[in-house]
Amino acid sequence: MVAKEINIAVLGASGYTGAELIRILALHPYARLSVLTADRHAGEEMDSVYPHLLGKKLPKLTRIGDIDFANLDVIFCGLPHGATHKIMGRLDHKNKLIDLSPDFRLMDVGIYEQWYGKHKAPSFQKSFVYGLSELNREKIKLASFVANPGCYPTSCILPLAPLLELKHIDPENIVIDAKSGVSGAGRSPKEAHLYGEITEGVHAYGVGSHRHMPEIEQELSNAAGEDIFVSFTPHLMPMSRGILSTIYISLKKNHTVSDLKFALENYYKHDEFVKILKGNKLPSTRHVRGSNFCVINVFEDRLPGKAIIISAIDNLVKGASGQAIQNMNLMFGLEENTAITQQPLFP
Amino acid sequence: MVAKEINIAVLGASGYTGAELIRILALHPYARLSVLTADRHAGEEMDSVYPHLLGKKLPKLTRIGDIDFANLDVIFCGLPHGATHKIMGRLDHKNKLIDLSPDFRLMDVGIYEQWYGKHKAPSFQKSFVYGLSELNREKIKLASFVANPGCYPTSCILPLAPLLELKHIDPENIVIDAKSGVSGAGRSPKEAHLYGEITEGVHAYGVGSHRHMPEIEQELSNAAGEDIFVSFTPHLMPMSRGILSTIYISLKKNHTVSDLKFALENYYKHDEFVKILKGNKLPSTRHVRGSNFCVINVFEDRLPGKAIIISAIDNLVKGASGQAIQNMNLMFGLEENTAITQQPLFP
Amino acid sequence: MVAKEINIAVLGASGYTGAELIRILALHPYARLSVLTADRHAGEEMDSVYPHLLGKKLPKLTRIGDIDFANLDVIFCGLPHGATHKIMGRLDHKNKLIDLSPDFRLMDVGIYEQWYGKHKAPSFQKSFVYGLSELNREKIKLASFVANPGCYPTSCILPLAPLLELKHIDPENIVIDAKSGVSGAGRSPKEAHLYGEITEGVHAYGVGSHRHMPEIEQELSNAAGEDIFVSFTPHLMPMSRGILSTIYISLKKNHTVSDLKFALENYYKHDEFVKILKGNKLPSTRHVRGSNFCVINVFEDRLPGKAIIISAIDNLVKGASGQAIQNMNLMFGLEENTAITQQPLFP
Amino acid sequence: MVAKEINIAVLGASGYTGAELIRILALHPYARLSVLTADRHAGEEMDSVYPHLLGKKLPKLTRIGDIDFANLDVIFCGLPHGATHKIMGRLDHKNKLIDLSPDFRLMDVGIYEQWYGKHKAPSFQKSFVYGLSELNREKIKLASFVANPGCYPTSCILPLAPLLELKHIDPENIVIDAKSGVSGAGRSPKEAHLYGEITEGVHAYGVGSHRHMPEIEQELSNAAGEDIFVSFTPHLMPMSRGILSTIYISLKKNHTVSDLKFALENYYKHDEFVKILKGNKLPSTRHVRGSNFCVINVFEDRLPGKAIIISAIDNLVKGASGQAIQNMNLMFGLEENTAITQQPLFP
Repeated sequence: MVAKEINIAVLGASGYTGAELIRILALHPYARLSVLTADRHAGEEMDSVYPHLLGKKLPKLTRIGDIDFANLDVIFCGLPHGATHKIMGRLDHKNKLIDLSPDFRLMDVGIYEQWYGKHKAPSFQKSFVYGLSELNREKIKLASFVANPGCYPTSCILPLAPLLELKHIDPENIVIDAKSGVSGAGRSPKEAHLYGEITEGVHAYGVGSHRHMPEIEQELSNAAGEDIFVSFTPHLMPMSRGILSTIYISLKKNHTVSDLKFALENYYKHDEFVKILKGNKLPSTRHVRGSNFCVINVFEDRLPGKAIIISAIDNLVKGASGQAIQNMNLMFGLEENTAITQQPLFP
Repeated sequence: MVAKEINIAVLGASGYTGAELIRILALHPYARLSVLTADRHAGEEMDSVYPHLLGKKLPKLTRIGDIDFANLDVIFCGLPHGATHKIMGRLDHKNKLIDLSPDFRLMDVGIYEQWYGKHKAPSFQKSFVYGLSELNREKIKLASFVANPGCYPTSCILPLAPLLELKHIDPENIVIDAKSGVSGAGRSPKEAHLYGEITEGVHAYGVGSHRHMPEIEQELSNAAGEDIFVSFTPHLMPMSRGILSTIYISLKKNHTVSDLKFALENYYKHDEFVKILKGNKLPSTRHVRGSNFCVINVFEDRLPGKAIIISAIDNLVKGASGQAIQNMNLMFGLEENTAITQQPLFP
Repeated sequence: MVAKEINIAVLGASGYTGAELIRILALHPYARLSVLTADRHAGEEMDSVYPHLLGKKLPKLTRIGDIDFANLDVIFCGLPHGATHKIMGRLDHKNKLIDLSPDFRLMDVGIYEQWYGKHKAPSFQKSFVYGLSELNREKIKLASFVANPGCYPTSCILPLAPLLELKHIDPENIVIDAKSGVSGAGRSPKEAHLYGEITEGVHAYGVGSHRHMPEIEQELSNAAGEDIFVSFTPHLMPMSRGILSTIYISLKKNHTVSDLKFALENYYKHDEFVKILKGNKLPSTRHVRGSNFCVINVFEDRLPGKAIIISAIDNLVKGASGQAIQNMNLMFGLEENTAITQQPLFP
Repeated sequence: MVAKEINIAVLGASGYTGAELIRILALHPYARLSVLTADRHAGEEMDSVYPHLLGKKLPKLTRIGDIDFANLDVIFCGLPHGATHKIMGRLDHKNKLIDLSPDFRLMDVGIYEQWYGKHKAPSFQKSFVYGLSELNREKIKLASFVANPGCYPTSCILPLAPLLELKHIDPENIVIDAKSGVSGAGRSPKEAHLYGEITEGVHAYGVGSHRHMPEIEQELSNAAGEDIFVSFTPHLMPMSRGILSTIYISLKKNHTVSDLKFALENYYKHDEFVKILKGNKLPSTRHVRGSNFCVINVFEDRLPGKAIIISAIDNLVKGASGQAIQNMNLMFGLEENTAITQQPLFP
């Protein structure tokens, strides 16, 4: 590995995923945080917007319009959906881009438009690689543009894609009951996300209509080699970080829960960040908090032929900024785990 | 209604359900709290064990062995499973009993013993009525002994039993993903339930093996007129109170989500505590906290023929002590809602 | 007591104090909730804005401009500061008013203007009685207009006023370190009050400059018969409800902590809602949650001549809406505790 | 710096401070975790006791009695008070020891015994250096035995010691109101620390009698050159980690808040982990979570001559395990910040 410095811009530094990129990159030995943008906070210091990012020399926040792309090696784009296209045309030919928005995750622009409205840069869609690091590692290494996966999709695709590819589970009747921390909803002030509206309670949202569904289905269909449709219901939890996905599946005939566990262990045996738990250990979001791990286990249901898969990630790390940095490491020929080996923070 | 005073004993007053009975009965116009037991705390004042029960004149805590049953009208038994039998032989013929333990909920003693071990008073089983107030109201009015339902079963049976009885939903492939507050686990000190082990995280437990499963299946089978088996997975949440059950079902042919909502609205139209929400309003545990309500809604899934039912209760009120008092009101010919009309506490 | 129905308007029903008034009044035997206003939500049902207020027949939300004051007996005004004046001129001569804003709490309009800016209805100031129920009971009974106390002031004045009046404590060097739940900040969406910004942390705010300081000082000065200045520092806590005030004071010569406790017990011996705890029991906000209690205890410091007073209230009940209803009860000749005898909700 | 591997034992690895040592040392380039003890869990894997410590190759848990001290360079002793003495006699002459218990923090054995009972190894007291890294750096570099400071003392001494040493503040009338997360109480199961007993509430404890008081007074007296007595009241907060200390002081005549800030900035100008905030920025525990930072600010009180100092630390990092590793780095001639440069985890 060559110890080359990587010039980095983080667009949308005032969002939670932006701040999380900076938190992690602050300890990356090759990262040089050159540009941080947040239009509403232009001119401010980063530690005014996020006081926990103290103690590091960071550039002042600027506007996207003021970026000079010429000297940048990679741009992390943490803007809301429908905004990334604005910078696509301004990129220098040597800029790499990792987009944390959903804009380039759906390969079929038609499906994108069903869920998000008019796509503003459809011609770029083909240039993007879907950045689920463990599944698309070789493509990501060669990519200039990576569409970083959504948080829910990461938590569901990692356990399900290998099992569908190997035909171990029934492609029908997949039910995903997901529970997410509130940081997934971002830092925009909304009544529904005030402390008093979230603490000590739980509710479902987006029932039958959450935008991460087509992304999950796209990747599972790719893995299965046939069209997959899932039932996906997210829930909002009184916690800042974490996604737990409880997945109800039917086994293919002559397959057992042990087969599933063995298949997953084998599939991820060289992957540092995906851990299949031993025995009946229960994945918990609090045991991955702040880390890039995805922990998974598979359980027998009482009903014959049924199984329950549970996965846990930190939505801001493996579900967003940590995986984005994992992808950067791959794209720049670095050790894949550079700067993302922190253990979870517990309690 | 006759304004007769009811002499009450609460056994297990140092548990959360015991304390909750006292909290509610403190405002019941006919309740006289005569005996409170907590063997480990005998001789202490109730407000030493539960400082929030201040301001009411309450009897000192005593031992179960010291109870004189002769003057009691009703005994609430909030002991752990396997303990209620010890008092069954000591009852006076005019004592009514409401048991909050699981000991007399399973009509088939054989099934009880599969899940809980040797039953210690099987001969009494037939004398108990299963106390889901809305479903068994007329039997409860005549009963001397009521087996008060479990918290998870209450949250699942209320929405599912009518739909199975009416043959609106497929009796197979019912998946229940339930999320519970920690008070359901009681007040015994356990490392796993310390604040630091619970806050800001979520995990499943008892996967494929939770003891409330046979209770749910018994009542759903009764309603359906055929054997029902469910997939039931509980999760522990960072909240004190509340159960949210997200239930994935298949519609019977030619049935719609509107049919289900209409059927539930009709079934519960005279029931003050079961509310079917309008439109796509989302049940939330924080909106029933401290109250005896069960709120329910039914949603279309994206997959044709599938629906998602969500119900929310407070596990300590409608899921335990509130329903026990609702049953007492029925057993003593009082207005069913006496003392349990408090609105939820929010935020 | 005459069982007369009281026609009530709640102005600002979409705020937390408005919702709390409705939650409590829903069980008040003489309350008739005739008018609920929330300009931004006019035309909506209350249970759309606050889903926990289900199950009660409530009038639709209207605009303040549309109120017919003629048939109202009492108006609860839960608007932000600087707004109550708009309705003062529209009142019917028989309307009573309980203002939960700070607009008429400070008897000296000059002091009001130092902290809040221009007073918009100074001529009405003299007509208001400061509504700390236990201290001003007789005046409140005769009042038409009551300025309901602030939450922090209630928690501090109840323990300190009697001790200053009785010259038991040094009027100098009073340090109040207060800890409040987030509901005190209202329901307006602000980044700083999002769940992720509040959970699992604590910070001070308004250091040296919180607007409740002059209110505390006014009432303590009245009690002491001399000018009192306090050091008051509020902290924002990861909890929805509750205020704990830890108050550091110096004893007057020849006075002991026992004298202080005895004095407070004696002062409040007929007051149902103010409880001086026995022995070294520690006041906790969680043991008054949802109730109208103020619990207080006094502790010896290790330093001779110093003592520590701790008080706990629910900021939305005794610190706002509960005390407002206590005042209404006084103003209408009802039992003072009508509808506010609910026990705290714990856990 | 020589890249020498340091052989490390962590005694008490099943406690929160033990787990936190391992979390941090897992990324320390020179640390070799050779021995982890937890008598009750001997024979188990660390990730069974703490599932978040996954993904690292760690030795199995053993008993203290089975340690071979000969090959160890440093022992971190995270046992309860009164236990460290058992290993003092077994140490090899080249073993260094960092004790996280209070046993060797109080230089005056007589004072220790007033607060903790009989000291079991008083003869070793003189060999220990008090390990507040920034204040005792040169002594720590030369020490074999370090008594690692308590969490509350760290949060109070860092801001107060310089100001007392420089005679900027009055040595009398120092009031410390401290707020701590629950992890400070350890992982032993206690009813009082169950989730339901802690969430959504706050209370003081150990009022006038907390054992960290003499430790604070010892170090402040050393700094001031005269006996200092403080009023110290800790509070238990619904959060896992963090201590916020709000400190009320009187300025010496002719001193201003600006003088205090300038003095602190100057005192800590070369210290990476102690940060004096700019302007009126408010220290918050959530902005130091998981990090070794102590953030401090000084505020004018409204009362002339008074000031308010606020400091925030993570009790498990700067208040325990992080500072212990900072001390290890000093004792072994490493860069002081090795392995403890992680940014805080927010949200």
